[in-house]
Amino acid sequence: MATTKSPFAPKSFTTLPEVAGVRLGGIAAGVKYKGRPDLFMAELDPGTTVAGVLTTSLTRSSAVEWCAQILKKGVARGMLVNAGNANAFTGKAGMEGTEAMAEVAAAAIGCKKKEVLVASTGVIGQKLPTDRISKAVPKLHAGLTPTGWPTAARAIMTTDTFPKGASATCEIGGVEVTIAGFAKGSGMIAPDMATMLAFVFTDANIPHAVLQKLLRKATDKTFNCITVDGDTSTSDTLLLAATGKAGNTAPKKASDKALKGFRAALLDVLTQLAHHVVKDGEGASKFVTIDVTGAASDAAARKIGLSIANSPLVKTAIAGEDANWGRIVMAVGKAGERADRDRLTVAMGGTVIAEQGEGVQDYDEAPVTAHLKGREIDIEVDVGIGRGKARVWTCDLTHAYIDINADYRS
Amino acid sequence: MATTKSPFAPKSFTTLPEVAGVRLGGIAAGVKYKGRPDLFMAELDPGTTVAGVLTTSLTRSSAVEWCAQILKKGVARGMLVNAGNANAFTGKAGMEGTEAMAEVAAAAIGCKKKEVLVASTGVIGQKLPTDRISKAVPKLHAGLTPTGWPTAARAIMTTDTFPKGASATCEIGGVEVTIAGFAKGSGMIAPDMATMLAFVFTDANIPHAVLQKLLRKATDKTFNCITVDGDTSTSDTLLLAATGKAGNTAPKKASDKALKGFRAALLDVLTQLAHHVVKDGEGASKFVTIDVTGAASDAAARKIGLSIANSPLVKTAIAGEDANWGRIVMAVGKAGERADRDRLTVAMGGTVIAEQGEGVQDYDEAPVTAHLKGREIDIEVDVGIGRGKARVWTCDLTHAYIDINADYRS
Repeated sequence: MATTKSPFAPKSFTTLPEVAGVRLGGIAAGVKYKGRPDLFMAELDPGTTVAGVLTTSLTRSSAVEWCAQILKKGVARGMLVNAGNANAFTGKAGMEGTEAMAEVAAAAIGCKKKEVLVASTGVIGQKLPTDRISKAVPKLHAGLTPTGWPTAARAIMTTDTFPKGASATCEIGGVEVTIAGFAKGSGMIAPDMATMLAFVFTDANIPHAVLQKLLRKATDKTFNCITVDGDTSTSDTLLLAATGKAGNTAPKKASDKALKGFRAALLDVLTQLAHHVVKDGEGASKFVTIDVTGAASDAAARKIGLSIANSPLVKTAIAGEDANWGRIVMAVGKAGERADRDRLTVAMGGTVIAEQGEGVQDYDEAPVTAHLKGREIDIEVDVGIGRGKARVWTCDLTHAYIDINADYRS
Repeated sequence: MATTKSPFAPKSFTTLPEVAGVRLGGIAAGVKYKGRPDLFMAELDPGTTVAGVLTTSLTRSSAVEWCAQILKKGVARGMLVNAGNANAFTGKAGMEGTEAMAEVAAAAIGCKKKEVLVASTGVIGQKLPTDRISKAVPKLHAGLTPTGWPTAARAIMTTDTFPKGASATCEIGGVEVTIAGFAKGSGMIAPDMATMLAFVFTDANIPHAVLQKLLRKATDKTFNCITVDGDTSTSDTLLLAATGKAGNTAPKKASDKALKGFRAALLDVLTQLAHHVVKDGEGASKFVTIDVTGAASDAAARKIGLSIANSPLVKTAIAGEDANWGRIVMAVGKAGERADRDRLTVAMGGTVIAEQGEGVQDYDEAPVTAHLKGREIDIEVDVGIGRGKARVWTCDLTHAYIDINADYRS
């Protein structure tokens, strides 16, 4: 398994602020890996509300089903998450393993097991070594701190080459609140739901139904707009916990004016995390932003954007630094959404290279070539139909993707 | 551009029989390549009916639109096809180029231009060098023969590493008829429509409406069940021409009992050609047959099969000879069709490795490992819902795919 660090990896893990009411950490439980943290735990103060977006896979794991139950009520006191084993497609043992994780965490925290959110990531189809996890939890719990971010973020990594964190602050009705979180994900990244785990925390006081709406809306513009390989995991889980410790007046609905700053800050944190996931896409050497305009609707624009973003031929062309806009046209055509072939415009890095149904004769190739040699690639497509628009992100498809995935399980 | 020959390439091009009423050949017109045939022409006797299945891409090329017009009437006297330039997304010049090709062929044959089917394959977005094509046609036409198959098959190749031919004979009402044809395609292979060009000829006497139904039905079981990379071309064209020279009584409908043998022979020829295309899939080292059973419908089974066949994670696992059935479960889950996670069965090469929602404990890995080391891989999945079934074919995803596609245009 290749472990070359992504060229986009930050020099060090970002410093994340404390979030009142949250203590967290990680420990090496030996689930699969040796000598690295692989078990993450968070303890949340009483009164914490939670929201979540879960995989739409029809073969979703028992941990996802467990979380779905808890999210109906939307309150939780803790999270326990392991890496190295997805506990997916493991029959009856699957739910037994998930419940065992919830139980041992609940015992340490002193809450009900149905107040503990669980997630597992890693290989599918192998039984979870719950004994190792159970054994590690008391020590893990004893070491939880408000500053445990770096170890927690590392503990959920699988093929990730760097830990991914982001934070922001804002005000709700004059009260400062903090949002901080981390994510993992590198392969099997595709909506819906973007395939990964992400855990985000805030000290804001927000009822769970409102929190859920805020999270869903921000997710549709971030994690549901990224793709690495079009493959959807059985375990995708994005959780947002709000402890209420900031003491702001509780908003009654997601569209509340007082939440303007919070909505922007949440979008910012999720955007940062989603970009980190793409930038750590297996084998990624380029980060690609695709803007689609002129579509019949925003949803149509997103579908066209993802068709481009998921096309192996587009992704290999970008890896080869080749301005092969014909493949972009192909991907627009196969998306199944309305597009006017004879009004289609394609630009790269701001240079229009095709418009009105044909390539621009003698366009200046120099800036396009220079742009394609860079790390961050911009593709702009107007499909000439209406006002729908969307922005999606992906990475290129390189030899390293094959290296990583042709020998992952072994 | 890598040109390593596919490990599945036959030692030599198959011998194809003459089809009464068809004369064909190829010539080096210098459209793009040097020193190889890149222009294919066929002349069809008067009275020939034609059927076709064309790309569903919304950015389809002008040649495809041209063929669509001709197929409404379903009669033709000739075909002219170039490789090296797809004449797609070339604005007004696109249809001008297509019409120019039809005109020059019609002049040589002595028919109307609307009786000449045209196809172009190769790079998208570059103007067609119609002068070179026009200049080559008279000599090409003069050299057409009933045995021109090998050169014709080579003349339509792009990234193909071997020419692809197939034939069969059968009887219609006691009269022997012949079917023979050839195909090209290697990347951008995905339904609908399987991305490639294929030209098939028969001396059977079949009205065009019946011929169209027969072709559509056989296509749905063959070319629409293969995928290399999930990318759909702007130029996919499958044409079937029936000269009527065999002299059989014309069937009135596709379900005519007299056509039983013909239906089977057509399915056989299209299956062979479709398999050739997958076996020449860019970078393919394994040929993968995926059987899906137990789905809600045949269409659902096909969608699940193609979800598995298009998954980069499944394809890289096969390249790595890794029995990673967890990725197959993942691909079933993301297909969006009903599947019972806890009744799902996955087998490879006939060995069941997962059933009833979990991996088979201590299954004998030896036969699976041996199977995965082979060239032809069989995956069987039962999703435990109903009686729907489908068989689809794909190839693995290897480094050679990246080599070929990261540097095609340059």
